[in-house]
Amino acid sequence: MYDLDPNLYAARLKLMTEMKQKAREITLPLFHAPHIDMTNKAGMGSFDPVTQADKEAEALMRHMILSQFSKDHIDGEEFPDHVGESDWKWTLDPIDGTRAFLAGVPVWSTLIALSYKDDPIIGMIDLPAMGRTYEGGPNGAWLEDIKGRRVIKTRPCPTLKAAILGCTEPLSMFSQGERAAYEMIRSGIRFSRLGLDALGYGLVAQGRMDIIIEAGLKPCDVRALIPIIHGAGGRLTNWHGGSAVDGGQVVAVGDEGLLPELYSYLARAMPE
Amino acid sequence: MYDLDPNLYAARLKLMTEMKQKAREITLPLFHAPHIDMTNKAGMGSFDPVTQADKEAEALMRHMILSQFSKDHIDGEEFPDHVGESDWKWTLDPIDGTRAFLAGVPVWSTLIALSYKDDPIIGMIDLPAMGRTYEGGPNGAWLEDIKGRRVIKTRPCPTLKAAILGCTEPLSMFSQGERAAYEMIRSGIRFSRLGLDALGYGLVAQGRMDIIIEAGLKPCDVRALIPIIHGAGGRLTNWHGGSAVDGGQVVAVGDEGLLPELYSYLARAMPE
Repeated sequence: MYDLDPNLYAARLKLMTEMKQKAREITLPLFHAPHIDMTNKAGMGSFDPVTQADKEAEALMRHMILSQFSKDHIDGEEFPDHVGESDWKWTLDPIDGTRAFLAGVPVWSTLIALSYKDDPIIGMIDLPAMGRTYEGGPNGAWLEDIKGRRVIKTRPCPTLKAAILGCTEPLSMFSQGERAAYEMIRSGIRFSRLGLDALGYGLVAQGRMDIIIEAGLKPCDVRALIPIIHGAGGRLTNWHGGSAVDGGQVVAVGDEGLLPELYSYLARAMPE
Repeated sequence: MYDLDPNLYAARLKLMTEMKQKAREITLPLFHAPHIDMTNKAGMGSFDPVTQADKEAEALMRHMILSQFSKDHIDGEEFPDHVGESDWKWTLDPIDGTRAFLAGVPVWSTLIALSYKDDPIIGMIDLPAMGRTYEGGPNGAWLEDIKGRRVIKTRPCPTLKAAILGCTEPLSMFSQGERAAYEMIRSGIRFSRLGLDALGYGLVAQGRMDIIIEAGLKPCDVRALIPIIHGAGGRLTNWHGGSAVDGGQVVAVGDEGLLPELYSYLARAMPE
């Protein structure tokens, strides 16, 4: 982690908060819009609220960035990468959890990461339908909701047996070997919660859950999560203890004392 | 379904809404209370926010019922059944989704069912942490949240391939045979969402999801759900097409045209 002067990124942090607000104005009405019956979908044209929200929100956020910081890099889901020439890179996922968005489950989020020399140093998980934002950076991590903004920290968890484990979809996100490793870990923990998407990482950061194990993530799924987990006192790595900035197999813990045992199980799964 | 005069249950319906409000005042602060670190739990005594919220909320709801309708039956999770002599039975689950409650996930709910001659005719799913209530009865189903109260209906879903499927925990709630049946169905649907507890049934009722398949439910988990799914135009039965009032293996659909195919898969799993 770079020991960065906060003045270096203060203006970008301010912009990130403005981007989140503007993105909400696009995504939230589409989430609540009456959805087209599947039977009528063809007849109604190709209206797809997720795609529309994804594209519109990302286009708006890109525009906001380039208006102020035209030399920054931008990686997003919906449009080609914008190659800049500064040391800063924005990574955008306008709607993480598109299946939750479609099914009416309020755990979908907008993910924004700011990297310096390719290291994610500021991350934001904004959950518009829950009215909740997680943020993290070199100076800590925060949760903001209707009750205000407060510092969050992970909790100690001395043993796997005491841990609450999360995973969005163990039946579909893992290869056979990955699933075997996950099942081995699951058989030794306290209990698991599924279907959380990025919210699970926020709950680890705020000390309500202890472990998230996932695979098949894209860089834009994971870059925003790292500064939040690290800022709250936890660790987010790949399954072999290396950097997770490129996505793939990811493990996040609130208490890094859990990692050696987790790595020993996860090492038995073949890399993707 | 009995063709009941609404005047017969109007007073009990009013009481149900009051019970929900009072239960929220107990459960919601405990959900948001700072939780005890696992490492300190022993040293801090036996504080368990779920148990406390469960017991206090159920005791209060029982007291409210007996103050007005002392002859009604009451079945709950936390205390012995109250055997009455009227035709009415209340079934209470003060906190459905205790794992969600513990993990900080806002999908836990208070379930209240009112049965007449053992048939659930009014049901309520109250989600305090989401500020949302689902209600259903002989005259329809409703969703109430910050945007007001509105009628909800299930949506048509012509084929399994078009369906969004939900299940709280397929890795732990099913026996081996049940899981095989679930996996067979899952391989043919559009996508699945996990970890929803009672919210999943509400999302089917409001036409955002299509199928929920679960097993191992208690009567107090399922009785409140039946009038909501049926009031919105869907069907909730056991895996063999019979009544689900006693819990166990449960399937809920928004479009009952899906049932014959689902039953054909579910019949291959042995009964519990």
